[in-house]
Amino acid sequence: MTRGLLIVVSGASGTGKGTVCKKILTDLPEVAYSISATTRTPRPGEVDGREYYFLSVDEFKAWIADEKFLEYAEVYGNFYGTPLNKIEERLNRGEDILLEIDVQGALNVKRKCPEGIYIFLLPPSLEELKRRIEGRGTESPESLSRRLKNAVAEIKIGLEYDYVVVNDSVDKAVAEIKSILTAERLKVARNADKFKLGEDFK
Amino acid sequence: MTRGLLIVVSGASGTGKGTVCKKILTDLPEVAYSISATTRTPRPGEVDGREYYFLSVDEFKAWIADEKFLEYAEVYGNFYGTPLNKIEERLNRGEDILLEIDVQGALNVKRKCPEGIYIFLLPPSLEELKRRIEGRGTESPESLSRRLKNAVAEIKIGLEYDYVVVNDSVDKAVAEIKSILTAERLKVARNADKFKLGEDFK
Repeated sequence: MTRGLLIVVSGASGTGKGTVCKKILTDLPEVAYSISATTRTPRPGEVDGREYYFLSVDEFKAWIADEKFLEYAEVYGNFYGTPLNKIEERLNRGEDILLEIDVQGALNVKRKCPEGIYIFLLPPSLEELKRRIEGRGTESPESLSRRLKNAVAEIKIGLEYDYVVVNDSVDKAVAEIKSILTAERLKVARNADKFKLGEDFK
Repeated sequence: MTRGLLIVVSGASGTGKGTVCKKILTDLPEVAYSISATTRTPRPGEVDGREYYFLSVDEFKAWIADEKFLEYAEVYGNFYGTPLNKIEERLNRGEDILLEIDVQGALNVKRKCPEGIYIFLLPPSLEELKRRIEGRGTESPESLSRRLKNAVAEIKIGLEYDYVVVNDSVDKAVAEIKSILTAERLKVARNADKFKLGEDFK
């Protein structure tokens, strides 16, 4: 069984990573989202291990103590986390796992999982980034300026990633990510078994 | 100007690297063959710097002394060589250069140009490799067995390459190589300029 790919997609706010990741999941049936763990109560129809791994607070804290999380946070009294143990299980079953994560979070993941594929999305231009951030709502000019400044600072962090994809069109960005995944699957390091071809030859 | 890619394609005999390389050049107009240098006389219609770099024997020996060749050989009294200086010039102009080379030769090139992309072609199976080697001509059983043994030994060397492509169909193999080139062009290390996006932002 070939181990699956851990695909980490990130980018400064306003680069459209949510839209790109949704399309990856639609277009590439072999890729599945990472499933988070949470302590919140399941809603009707939610299945443990499908929408979330549902844990008690004690279980969640035990997972924290056992360093099972790539990252976790408390939001409005509930815990949410990305469980590395579950990702590992799925990768070992040959599943490709997509992780959509903020810029700094992705670098933390990279330290723990250097064999992952780290893809950074860039906006096509500074003007387009401004337009996208402004288009989101009715924030004050000061808040917009701060968010733009943060986005520009986050872009520098992209130099720590493996690949950079300019998101000027979602279709083009997803096609490029598809090529990245094809190439990564062809790396010699992931295909040692193919070289056993001649071993039964005398 | 982004530096071009040095694409080195190799594979044991019988893996069809000639056919795959011809199709790469047809399908990917941005990729050009490496041009060899030779001391033989130009034939009618041959142009210096297009079919070959035509050198005098003295010039060729000076290039050898100056370590300008990735590799060279003397064949029937004429010298032939792969000039690294000319490849460097073309890469610096942004051209992508394809080098089709034997298994051991490619490893020598890798030592001199580690930034190149080293692609190893594999036959789909040992049976198919036998079939292809036998299909070539009317060699003796001993000679066939020796060639097959050599091919199998060469396959192990493929573990030193970056990518492995199984040539069960030329179309599929070339499509995979296309993905490899797309992915390589998206590597952060080749795209530092794209991260200057925010530099003019105050």
